Amino acid sequence: MIKPLADRVVIRRLEAEETTKSGIVLTGSAKEKPQEAVVVAVGPGGYVDGNKVDMEVKVGDKVLFSKYAGTEIKHQGEEVIIVRQSDILAIVE
Amino acid sequence: MIKPLADRVVIRRLEAEETTKSGIVLTGSAKEKPQEAVVVAVGPGGYVDGNKVDMEVKVGDKVLFSKYAGTEIKHQGEEVIIVRQSDILAIVE
Amino acid sequence: MIKPLADRVVIRRLEAEETTKSGIVLTGSAKEKPQEAVVVAVGPGGYVDGNKVDMEVKVGDKVLFSKYAGTEIKHQGEEVIIVRQSDILAIVE
Amino acid sequence: MIKPLADRVVIRRLEAEETTKSGIVLTGSAKEKPQEAVVVAVGPGGYVDGNKVDMEVKVGDKVLFSKYAGTEIKHQGEEVIIVRQSDILAIVE
Amino acid sequence: MIKPLADRVVIRRLEAEETTKSGIVLTGSAKEKPQEAVVVAVGPGGYVDGNKVDMEVKVGDKVLFSKYAGTEIKHQGEEVIIVRQSDILAIVE
Amino acid sequence: MIKPLADRVVIRRLEAEETTKSGIVLTGSAKEKPQEAVVVAVGPGGYVDGNKVDMEVKVGDKVLFSKYAGTEIKHQGEEVIIVRQSDILAIVE
Amino acid sequence: MIKPLADRVVIRRLEAEETTKSGIVLTGSAKEKPQEAVVVAVGPGGYVDGNKVDMEVKVGDKVLFSKYAGTEIKHQGEEVIIVRQSDILAIVE
Repeated sequence: MIKPLADRVVIRRLEAEETTKSGIVLTGSAKEKPQEAVVVAVGPGGYVDGNKVDMEVKVGDKVLFSKYAGTEIKHQGEEVIIVRQSDILAIVE
Repeated sequence: MIKPLADRVVIRRLEAEETTKSGIVLTGSAKEKPQEAVVVAVGPGGYVDGNKVDMEVKVGDKVLFSKYAGTEIKHQGEEVIIVRQSDILAIVE
Repeated sequence: MIKPLADRVVIRRLEAEETTKSGIVLTGSAKEKPQEAVVVAVGPGGYVDGNKVDMEVKVGDKVLFSKYAGTEIKHQGEEVIIVRQSDILAIVE
Repeated sequence: MIKPLADRVVIRRLEAEETTKSGIVLTGSAKEKPQEAVVVAVGPGGYVDGNKVDMEVKVGDKVLFSKYAGTEIKHQGEEVIIVRQSDILAIVE
Repeated sequence: MIKPLADRVVIRRLEAEETTKSGIVLTGSAKEKPQEAVVVAVGPGGYVDGNKVDMEVKVGDKVLFSKYAGTEIKHQGEEVIIVRQSDILAIVE
Repeated sequence: MIKPLADRVVIRRLEAEETTKSGIVLTGSAKEKPQEAVVVAVGPGGYVDGNKVDMEVKVGDKVLFSKYAGTEIKHQGEEVIIVRQSDILAIVE
Repeated sequence: MIKPLADRVVIRRLEAEETTKSGIVLTGSAKEKPQEAVVVAVGPGGYVDGNKVDMEVKVGDKVLFSKYAGTEIKHQGEEVIIVRQSDILAIVE
């Protein structure tokens, strides 16, 4: 189990079929391509660089995040990404 | 539905005909070209990098924003852009 | 009507004849050329990047600003520029 | 014995076999490759650049950290790395 | 009349003869050449980027400033320079 | 005698033989090579760039520091280095 | 007379003979060469970029400073240098 520190969030990228179902398609020309993902673990927040960060996302949220943000790792056979909450643009409902 | 986080705002670019009606035409030589758009969703504001941000725009506002700001996504067949409120220059009435 | 947000100011550049009348001539060798303009709209000020900004200029003020600052737009047939108040160097009386 | 100052943490990289057992495999294309390590010493925290830092990791924690962070040294025949706590992405349990 | 905003100061460069009289000669090899000038207008100070600035120079002060600082303008036939107070190194008495 | 200002620390690099005795050997590939040294003078700390700095090292401490940090001087026939305390990674005991 | 503003200090470089007497010799390979000087004028300190600066050096102090810091001027036939107090590394006694 991965327990992210501070304002970090572990997310799992949603596959194309899932993306299609949610109705979000990324435009090809966007310099910073957002991506859809589901939240699998959320750090505790708290003070990051002296600023208090409250965590606004929770496990299970479908989110849009910046493609080039974060660090990809493979955990128990599944690829996940560790991002900062500020790299998450929006929650999709 | 897209719920932007923090100080982010979801906007939909106004088409040329709409732009003409509002009387704003962008000059060709401007290095940072502003664009007209309508606000479709507004984040909750709050503390961003330790600074309190109050949201000054609301859904339906016609706004000028910097062309190169934000992230374009296609949501349910419609292109929208996610920007920070500080990328919005002015409200047009 | 353009309502600038935060510490932004909408200004209209003064023509050469107007500039001559006010007695200000810009020197050619200055790296950052100032320009004379008249203020046409003033944002509400308030907190910008966590710092409180009080607006010191008002509609009708003749001001000197940095040539490369701001964003030019054409509004109802007239070119205006949206700058931050901190890009305004001085008021000319 | 190495006693790290401020928000620094001394970690010992886990070998491949250990990594395999924990089920984390790093993907080849990640720009900033995380690595697994075990914490061997923890600084006292306190004020760093004016911000209060509480130490969230403890000796014995298995952690993910950014490959290019920190300074490698050889201490009593064993290679260790001195990183800042903010370079630690997550605790693995 | 030019009324500088915030922490800005309007200065008039002193001619060589004047410089010689005051006994200050600039060395040729200095990377950032200071210059002697006289203060002709002083902004109100106040909060600049969130920091309170008290104005320490007054009209008539002879000052040393950094050559490459500020913006040169010609006002009613006389060249003046608009600098920030922090670009003024010292007062010469 | 050298009395360092603010958060500065005067250190004397330990020779190879001393380093070997303490059991620390630097790895060749490290981009920022740490070095072992002994503290010979400690500044008073206090406010540095607005942040309060308490001095954590004392005269006689054996420390690891970053090779490229600080300024080398020769004082009474002995080479010493003036670093900021934040350039000291750890105390070795 | 030169009255430095804020946290600035006017210093006069010590000649080689003086340097030799004090026992400090600069090593040739140091990237940022310190220099010995004597303090001839001290600014009032106070708030600089929002941070309170107390002046720790006084007229007559022999100090080590960074060679590339500050601005050299010739005042009444004597070369002096205007530096910020933070460019002074240590007092030599």
